Amino acid sequence: MDLWLLLDKSSGLTLQTQVFEQIRRLILCGRLKPGMPLPSTRELSDRLKIARNTVTLAYDRLNDEGFIEVHGRSGTYVSSDLPDDLLDPEVRSSSNGTDDIALPQKEMRSPLLCYSGFAPGVGQIDQGRPEFDFWVGRSDPSTFPLRSWRQIMLRKLSTSSSSLTEYGDPAGLSELRVAIAGLLGRSRGMSVAPAQVVITNGSQDGLNLICRLLNAEHPVFIENPCYQGAAYLFQSIGAELCPIPVDKNGIVAEKLPKDRSGVLFVTPSHQYPTGATLSLDRRISLLRWAEETNSVIIEDDYDSDFRYEGRPLTALAGLDGGKRVFYLGSFSKSLGAGLRLGFTVVPEDHADLARIVKSQMSQGQPWLDQAVLADFIEDGLYDRHLRRLRKTYMARRDCLTECLDYHFGAVDLTGSDSGLHVAWRLPSDAPPASEIERRARQKGVGVYALHSGGAHDFYESPRNDTLVLGYSSLPQHDIECAIERLRKVL
Amino acid sequence: MDLWLLLDKSSGLTLQTQVFEQIRRLILCGRLKPGMPLPSTRELSDRLKIARNTVTLAYDRLNDEGFIEVHGRSGTYVSSDLPDDLLDPEVRSSSNGTDDIALPQKEMRSPLLCYSGFAPGVGQIDQGRPEFDFWVGRSDPSTFPLRSWRQIMLRKLSTSSSSLTEYGDPAGLSELRVAIAGLLGRSRGMSVAPAQVVITNGSQDGLNLICRLLNAEHPVFIENPCYQGAAYLFQSIGAELCPIPVDKNGIVAEKLPKDRSGVLFVTPSHQYPTGATLSLDRRISLLRWAEETNSVIIEDDYDSDFRYEGRPLTALAGLDGGKRVFYLGSFSKSLGAGLRLGFTVVPEDHADLARIVKSQMSQGQPWLDQAVLADFIEDGLYDRHLRRLRKTYMARRDCLTECLDYHFGAVDLTGSDSGLHVAWRLPSDAPPASEIERRARQKGVGVYALHSGGAHDFYESPRNDTLVLGYSSLPQHDIECAIERLRKVL
Repeated sequence: MDLWLLLDKSSGLTLQTQVFEQIRRLILCGRLKPGMPLPSTRELSDRLKIARNTVTLAYDRLNDEGFIEVHGRSGTYVSSDLPDDLLDPEVRSSSNGTDDIALPQKEMRSPLLCYSGFAPGVGQIDQGRPEFDFWVGRSDPSTFPLRSWRQIMLRKLSTSSSSLTEYGDPAGLSELRVAIAGLLGRSRGMSVAPAQVVITNGSQDGLNLICRLLNAEHPVFIENPCYQGAAYLFQSIGAELCPIPVDKNGIVAEKLPKDRSGVLFVTPSHQYPTGATLSLDRRISLLRWAEETNSVIIEDDYDSDFRYEGRPLTALAGLDGGKRVFYLGSFSKSLGAGLRLGFTVVPEDHADLARIVKSQMSQGQPWLDQAVLADFIEDGLYDRHLRRLRKTYMARRDCLTECLDYHFGAVDLTGSDSGLHVAWRLPSDAPPASEIERRARQKGVGVYALHSGGAHDFYESPRNDTLVLGYSSLPQHDIECAIERLRKVL
Repeated sequence: MDLWLLLDKSSGLTLQTQVFEQIRRLILCGRLKPGMPLPSTRELSDRLKIARNTVTLAYDRLNDEGFIEVHGRSGTYVSSDLPDDLLDPEVRSSSNGTDDIALPQKEMRSPLLCYSGFAPGVGQIDQGRPEFDFWVGRSDPSTFPLRSWRQIMLRKLSTSSSSLTEYGDPAGLSELRVAIAGLLGRSRGMSVAPAQVVITNGSQDGLNLICRLLNAEHPVFIENPCYQGAAYLFQSIGAELCPIPVDKNGIVAEKLPKDRSGVLFVTPSHQYPTGATLSLDRRISLLRWAEETNSVIIEDDYDSDFRYEGRPLTALAGLDGGKRVFYLGSFSKSLGAGLRLGFTVVPEDHADLARIVKSQMSQGQPWLDQAVLADFIEDGLYDRHLRRLRKTYMARRDCLTECLDYHFGAVDLTGSDSGLHVAWRLPSDAPPASEIERRARQKGVGVYALHSGGAHDFYESPRNDTLVLGYSSLPQHDIECAIERLRKVL
């Protein structure tokens, strides 16, 4: 079995601890079963591109604690019988002097939880923002339709404020679910019953909902490179991650195993991070694969509202007719992340359970914002808002690509025909992306290497030749200054 | 091992399927380990109070699918080697003709997810409300401080609307965390650093957060009877539930096993559903037990704002000095459930991880409501609001208890000195609580037997002699009419 560990250099934990904790966790959650062979320290250190001694020390510790056993030459294996008392916190804490409360401490030291999504919240929030920040997926405050939003808000408060004190349907406010179903028909070619729509606290909440509906015992096929937040969440629930390569046309469908069933996580509209748009024939192959292998697909459509060239392709969930595709949508990019409004569309026969699961996670989303958004959409204000935004963001995209070409010659960009960011494959003679990120930061410019830009890759030698630049929150003038500074850096 | 299954007659699934699915799930999640003995069909059917044949058929099916094996006389055991292909959806679906998408369908049929919390959302929402509804924990719409709330809302929108488009700290808005820390100091005797406070989407979200911080491998000690939403959530993550009896003084601390470590879930201020207030000496014993067994405690303080007699007792989290107690608070009762605002207080050394875990669940709560609530508290409006509410609810409690005494003589009530509901232990000659619930409903009165009132008990013969009545949303006059009708029913 391929053993993918997600090492996070910014997690503040030593690599040795991360290797130890992640393997330990994979064993405890049953992903690595008793008797299974582990890769040799050499293989693993090569794959993770870390010192072999780091792996050796992690293995020693796993061995000391009885999780693995070394059979001389023949290699290292997961202990064939894990003593039950491994699960006993007393024993576990005694095996580690630093523990004071055993249960959480154990979890606490698991880097699987050290995750930073698109939000500056985790990891980012403390270092403060650079003067010019190309952070991905930020919307521009000045674009928020404040006047009409406030107007509708006051109307709602004066007509139906009693909803403030009532528990609502955990699946969401029905007016909003109806409005979204209509929206998806118009813009994504999906024919969806309102009952299939669950209102969530952004996409991440929706992804958690889907994870609860599905079964962690099954492998998760995921784009490589992929959206970090998804990868870390899947692994934190003990799922086996199987990376599938991505090229200029998105995920390479042919690489999906014909003989395995599982859950496929994809970003077809604007692959994260490369920005590739999945071609129609590949969309069809994905659906055929899911049909043939009895698998399901999670389609994360995080920024599909922004397409500057050509019509948007029909969503997988539209092509599939709502049978095997779970769809993730969000208003964080089109309206604002501070609203925490997203939605999930589940296949029809999962609608009832999705509602129950959502009620188990939380009793649904706040009433007022849902009510306001419902009217905002139904009154046609949302469509108009999007048209305006597309103009604004397209101009910024043009400005960015022109500046890059002007200062760096013909640059290798992907993802510029839609979305809110581009991926820049650096020329071979350029310094590593992480190095450029560091230098740019000193000059007050925020550009991001894949890993710090909310992406993760599973390559044996992690790619460090690509920068992601989100342009949606920067006015043209700022973009010009920022790229000029960037040139001085390179 | 005691095998507790949570059967839900309203789940629309046959009891046989529920027994099959729950045992299957306990095996798949490793709670029931290979070789473990299962109770005989007779024992289990007695305990669950269902037909023996139902259990037999469920066992047959588990046997057919290879989950369990029957060793002639000696009894039934979890299969000593579960074939790996049990985890292969192909095989699993082929073993069950009805499957079309294997993964979710498997989950879908698990009644562990069929749960209804305090919210009318699940199960309740469709049947509509009775004319006079004693549903537990509803606040009265007319009590919502609409004017000042709107005022602060407009102020926030005009001064800092840019937060609408920004991702915030996943742990919550810092002003609100500061305000809540202050509040807890004043009202609950807790000395809490704002960093320990995580803003959540109500208590249920907070409980999910804590479940992710802790380790599902450890047993969960829970009150018997207990809050259904907690019990179902714990079991859905595969935790072993160990019921601990409750008497008039709350959970019987002496019954906690001295030799086991785990997670204890309690409602000390106003035990759900009995309404008992946990005595101080028992609070101390709980904390001592946690210290001695290296366990942690989850304190659900869902309606502690409403105390009518005497000062509120210091919260466990206050007595413990923030070492082993995780605290759950909510504004659903004091302000309104439609706001979806609650919070969790974690021990200091878990604050960082809690923030990360929250970001993995969702990127924190919506900005506006948090900002408004923060000012509402800091301006002293919240304390004033609570004082007013207490007066109102106390009058309604008095009205309810007087009506009950007047119509039914001296009734055996618990929980009347605080909170928003009372538990009425019916006289021995009265019909079963569920029968009264049914008849009252026909007369337009909503009173609830334990199970339909969001409670669960683990007694071998489930208690059906208690009604829960929430009085907070009914004006005195309605209470009088309702109880008069109730008398006609009895």
